[in-house]
Amino acid sequence: MGQQHGDRLSATDASFLAQEGPTSHMHIGGLSVLEGPPPDFRELCDLLRGRLHLVPRYRQKLATPPLGTGRPLWVDDPSFNLEYHVRQTALPSPGSEEQLLNLTSRVFSQALDRSKPLWEMWIVEGLADGRWAILSKTHHCLIDGISGVDLATVLFDLDPVPRDVGGAGTAWTPRPEPTGAELLARGLTGFVRTGLRLADGALSAISHPERSVSGGLEALEGVGEIAWAVANPAPATPLNVEIGPHRRFVGVRNRLEDFKEVKAAFGTTVNDVVLAVVAGALRDWLHSRGVRTEGLELRALVPVSIRTADDQGQLGNRLAAMRGPLPVYIADPVARLMAVKQAMTGIKESKQAVGAEVLTSVQDFAPPTILAQASRLNFSTRLFNMIVTNVPGPQLPLYVYGREVLDVFPIAFLPRRHGLAVAIISYNGAVNFGLLGDLDALPDIDVLAGGLQDQLAELSRLADERRAAGAETEGAPA
Amino acid sequence: MGQQHGDRLSATDASFLAQEGPTSHMHIGGLSVLEGPPPDFRELCDLLRGRLHLVPRYRQKLATPPLGTGRPLWVDDPSFNLEYHVRQTALPSPGSEEQLLNLTSRVFSQALDRSKPLWEMWIVEGLADGRWAILSKTHHCLIDGISGVDLATVLFDLDPVPRDVGGAGTAWTPRPEPTGAELLARGLTGFVRTGLRLADGALSAISHPERSVSGGLEALEGVGEIAWAVANPAPATPLNVEIGPHRRFVGVRNRLEDFKEVKAAFGTTVNDVVLAVVAGALRDWLHSRGVRTEGLELRALVPVSIRTADDQGQLGNRLAAMRGPLPVYIADPVARLMAVKQAMTGIKESKQAVGAEVLTSVQDFAPPTILAQASRLNFSTRLFNMIVTNVPGPQLPLYVYGREVLDVFPIAFLPRRHGLAVAIISYNGAVNFGLLGDLDALPDIDVLAGGLQDQLAELSRLADERRAAGAETEGAPA
Repeated sequence: MGQQHGDRLSATDASFLAQEGPTSHMHIGGLSVLEGPPPDFRELCDLLRGRLHLVPRYRQKLATPPLGTGRPLWVDDPSFNLEYHVRQTALPSPGSEEQLLNLTSRVFSQALDRSKPLWEMWIVEGLADGRWAILSKTHHCLIDGISGVDLATVLFDLDPVPRDVGGAGTAWTPRPEPTGAELLARGLTGFVRTGLRLADGALSAISHPERSVSGGLEALEGVGEIAWAVANPAPATPLNVEIGPHRRFVGVRNRLEDFKEVKAAFGTTVNDVVLAVVAGALRDWLHSRGVRTEGLELRALVPVSIRTADDQGQLGNRLAAMRGPLPVYIADPVARLMAVKQAMTGIKESKQAVGAEVLTSVQDFAPPTILAQASRLNFSTRLFNMIVTNVPGPQLPLYVYGREVLDVFPIAFLPRRHGLAVAIISYNGAVNFGLLGDLDALPDIDVLAGGLQDQLAELSRLADERRAAGAETEGAPA
Repeated sequence: MGQQHGDRLSATDASFLAQEGPTSHMHIGGLSVLEGPPPDFRELCDLLRGRLHLVPRYRQKLATPPLGTGRPLWVDDPSFNLEYHVRQTALPSPGSEEQLLNLTSRVFSQALDRSKPLWEMWIVEGLADGRWAILSKTHHCLIDGISGVDLATVLFDLDPVPRDVGGAGTAWTPRPEPTGAELLARGLTGFVRTGLRLADGALSAISHPERSVSGGLEALEGVGEIAWAVANPAPATPLNVEIGPHRRFVGVRNRLEDFKEVKAAFGTTVNDVVLAVVAGALRDWLHSRGVRTEGLELRALVPVSIRTADDQGQLGNRLAAMRGPLPVYIADPVARLMAVKQAMTGIKESKQAVGAEVLTSVQDFAPPTILAQASRLNFSTRLFNMIVTNVPGPQLPLYVYGREVLDVFPIAFLPRRHGLAVAIISYNGAVNFGLLGDLDALPDIDVLAGGLQDQLAELSRLADERRAAGAETEGAPA
């Protein structure tokens, strides 16, 4: 499934390792809150153990060829220990949401250990009302941005009774680690994929993610987008400052119904409403900082999946960076939403994004997968002020070990000089925002979180007004 | 107090920063378990806030002169935030000691943030029986190994009623941060200690720790100790392997009474008994690994404080590394203890350690201070296999916010290629061992912990036998 022992990291995946620094962590994940009581920790570990064969990368670690002769390979970790990766913890009394967010911030402030499979999963007990949480943290380079399946994804069931995936009791035998000489030989001659047959056409795209990505970037360049952006750099803002290793995380809950109501009232897409709400919250936040917003339009990097026929006539996913407009200069909420709609329509109609389905084309419920796609793109602050991703999820309840998943918050990452990233996920009637900020750059991240809710409430109110006015007009005598 | 805004780090303190790497953390600390119920977190923070003026370094951060022109300075942190450093957390149910040790291991696996004051204090709730814990973690370079006072130390009271140290309600005003130009000027010209008068003679030694340390090292060199050790390198063992960033920590409780009984029966010091017990536990552990111990003597680095008259006729502490013998080749516990006693007597009688009082000369109950002394010495694996420190504490109960401190475990650090460090503290009738190991190098650290207890029990039994035999002899007719 594209996750074999001995796979070499793609150039893009290897670049995630190279880009990572002491202050720019390249892990991503999600925070899920579940109904209680928490399952027995050992039993939950057993459940996980029985599904690990679905995600082979989660038992593989990096092996680096000596003397800088090549990109790292994925190899089975002979000392893999599930209990290292899965961590049981608890909140102090009273187990408030603030305490859960503090824990999330702390976990995401720490780098993953490069000598082990690059993920952690924290099982958090002690939430108020007997609830518990799953906090997942996975390195970008582990998740194939095209075909990736994430561990949290395989843990979710559509039914209160955990599905049987055939992995229980199956012994796992790691392949032997390559010796230094073997790694050197592979580094020098290129890795021969013995045992991996590329019979299935779909595997072709999967095993060449570089090509797919560069295809997406070429599409951008094709309409001079990059050239335009370089000539018109993203504006300097308090969002784009040097950041430290520590993070703040806040979650914001909204109802999908409210987004749909606004969408219907003003003839936009849900994604337009999301960007307009983010732009409005940023505007209020900048004002609270004393920053003037006249003439200021910020730019969001919005990862886009483009489905096209590739040069071998096969279907494959390609990625592009859409420049999401954030017109913070507009005071009127409806005018701001209309400006977003117009800009997005313009982008969609341009040659660059022919056939693009803004994120909604992604079928899987795999937040880290989408986020990984984002990082395959150029997130230079010359081009973008922040990352905004919007991941559609299922509109029915999910379960882990029979407990209903009540809330999901996606957690993005901060590239260098990015003080804020916003990830959004829709799930079971909710549209939850996860705001990841630098600890020092965003002491007032709550202002942003509150602003998001205020902005949506205001657009809802205006949508109600418009609908009422429309009804009056319809009911008026001709 | 030797902790002024604008102080330059000593060469030794600066070397702690330079030596620290992704796998060799240079923080140290302690784990204290206290009777319940846990105090209100906000009130505990207020108590701490009222004592911070006793330890100015805890509100200072590093300022590094540009262009590599000099060692860092300590400067007040204008954005100091106590709530960042003091962290409230909890154990999952049932709040076992194993879970507390897991948390300790995790906290000590993570580097401190270099851009902030270099310490953390974790308040841990949810221990079984309503108890709670304080986990302190402080960077080496923050603690002056000669005169240092540690935050945990100032938190402890001798009385259930917290003492008034006069700090409550006192506002703290940080001095302005030096500009880049100021730092550069200081780097180029040397820092002028304006405002710090060296009127008190004792300050002379404090402000020149390099001189004191090199004095200690010279004392070693004086008897050719270093030359001898280099010619006779410490043996290769599974203790001295490449280590990763992650740690294991276990605590072992013993009764001081048992150590004293053995000491009296065999005419040794408590410190001899400690080293003999450690040697015996290492012997059993090596055997469990299939390592042969014939002819094998390991070497412990034991920090020693030497009080001498310095060149200005003033009293000051000097440091030396005593090579603590660990004769793992001897099977018989009493013979092993006698070998340690003889070697230690020999070392004490040598010119090198004239006047040395093995650690018992330290008056203060400040584990990090002692540990910091250890790191001022050369811990090359050429010379030593491991660090063993033994810190005497008070033999009466201590309190924090009116709650009795039930147990204290000191936590040392692992230099490069050191898989294990043992720190020992005596407190209120107990002699507790803290074993810090590399996560991967010491999966069987519990074997060592169990071995320590077995060894002490065996020596106790033999001491009983000897006493009984002595009583018989005494009671026998002449």
